[in-house]
This record gives sequence, C-alpha cells and structure tokens, in this order.
Amino acid sequence: MIDADLRPGEQTVAPPEGFDAQLWFIGRLRTPFADRADCPRQGDVATGPVCRVEIDPRWRLALTGVEECEEVVLLYWMHESRRDLVLQRPRGRDELVGTFALRSPVRPNPIAVSQVPLLGREGDALLVRGLDCVDGTPLLDVKLGLRPR
Amino acid sequence: MIDADLRPGEQTVAPPEGFDAQLWFIGRLRTPFADRADCPRQGDVATGPVCRVEIDPRWRLALTGVEECEEVVLLYWMHESRRDLVLQRPRGRDELVGTFALRSPVRPNPIAVSQVPLLGREGDALLVRGLDCVDGTPLLDVKLGLRPR
Repeated sequence: MIDADLRPGEQTVAPPEGFDAQLWFIGRLRTPFADRADCPRQGDVATGPVCRVEIDPRWRLALTGVEECEEVVLLYWMHESRRDLVLQRPRGRDELVGTFALRSPVRPNPIAVSQVPLLGREGDALLVRGLDCVDGTPLLDVKLGLRPR
Repeated sequence: MIDADLRPGEQTVAPPEGFDAQLWFIGRLRTPFADRADCPRQGDVATGPVCRVEIDPRWRLALTGVEECEEVVLLYWMHESRRDLVLQRPRGRDELVGTFALRSPVRPNPIAVSQVPLLGREGDALLVRGLDCVDGTPLLDVKLGLRPR
C-alpha cells in the first residue's frame, strides 16, 4: 500500500475490528499553538506560555481541592494522529523505531501525558505552564501530580 | 439516590449521553495481585515484585528498540472502577476531595499512568517492577519514559 503520509520504511498494521473501551472528553486545552507545526517538541514547564485547562461544567465538583496541588498530571487525546503505525522514522533520526519506544503522538491509543505546575484556578479552568499540544485538544483527565522520585 | 458503594458525602454526576473516543486494549498486565484488596496503594519500583507487560502479537513490531529504554510509561485501564464520582472521601482521610485532586482509580476516564524501570524483554512481553494493579488489567500504551526533571 502506498501511503503519502509514511516516511521510508515506516510500517502500519491492520487495526483491530472493534474497540474495547470508550472515553468522555471532560474539557479542552487552550494553548497558543494553532496547529501541529506550531507546537514545541516538548513543553517547557519553566519558560513555556501559560495555558488554560477548561473543564466542562458537568465535572466542576471534581476540581474541589485542586488548588492544593503543586503539580497536576494531564491526560489528553491527540485527536489528529493516525493509530496504525508500529514502526516510525523519527524526524532527525536515521533509523526506524517501534512506536512503544517513542513518545510520538502517533500510537494505537493516542493519549498524551504531561505533568505540569499548577499556577492557579479561574472558575472551571486551571492555569498551567508547559503544554505542547494544539489549541482545542480534548482533555481526558486531571490527576494529582506526584513529586518525581 | 442511595448507593451502598458511596461513603458519606461522596457525590456523583449524571454521565454524558454518548462517548467521544474509543480505545483498543493492546495487551494485559500480569501481576501477583488477584483482586483490588491485594493491590498496594502505590507500586514500589525498588522492592515490588517483577510483573509482565504482555503485548498482543498484532502490535509486536511496535516494541522494536524498546530494550534501549531504561524506563517505560505504562497506561492502563482501571476496568473495575465506576466513572461518575466527582467528590470522594479517600480512605484514611476525614474530608471530601475532588476526583481531579486525587489519583484514585475512580474517575471519568479510569486511565492509570505508571513510569517503571524496564528490567528486560521476553518475546512479546516486557518485565517491569512497581505495578499496583490487578492481574489481567488491560493495557493501553507503552511509551519511552523520560528521566524526571
């Protein structure tokens, strides 16, 4: 199969027939990055721009006490990514690497994880620094961030 | 509504009508913990038992090069958890806390995240230490683990 989106040597697999579980989007991430070309390769928690984590009103009570968290872990859905790539040629590297040995957004379940400092709360939104994703990215979860060991 | 599973003061919300995205289980976690009562509160990456991360053969090529990773991030699905609880009374604490200020498996999208040392690979399985979940837990993702900052 010829696929113009693939780089030389990249390999896909046939996806499973059905899905196994389902997700709700609980909010959106608001960032200054309008599309993927604008996104940094990795967010900078020290110098990156302040971003907003907007929580849907339905889940508002789940924010109770979140102000006490110094850091939060955000899970979000990389909704623009294909899901069938198993061997990838990372930009700037002359080799093929398996998807599970990378942090690329292109993966069977395109869920990204970021632990970021919590700067404040404004109503149903959290202010954080260090996100790397496009504006409007669907949010899956907010968790208490643990101090790295 | 009276719900025998709820502790005093815990609150639920009506779930959204439809779902927004779908997941594939890409494998299973094999641990010595037969049910939730056996699970540690948090896995111990230094002294916990060795656990197996079994990847479905479909995704085998995505493991290419994973042996180079000192640590991997695992995402897994807490399939036994309810998803509608917004205010929780954590065991051993005399207060109500919002779901998003906790790491409890009870959350709208019950996805757990663990970064664990990679001890080795045996065919389509990875050996790791420090998991905290029941045997057979569905696996969602394996990613390169970054050194904590």
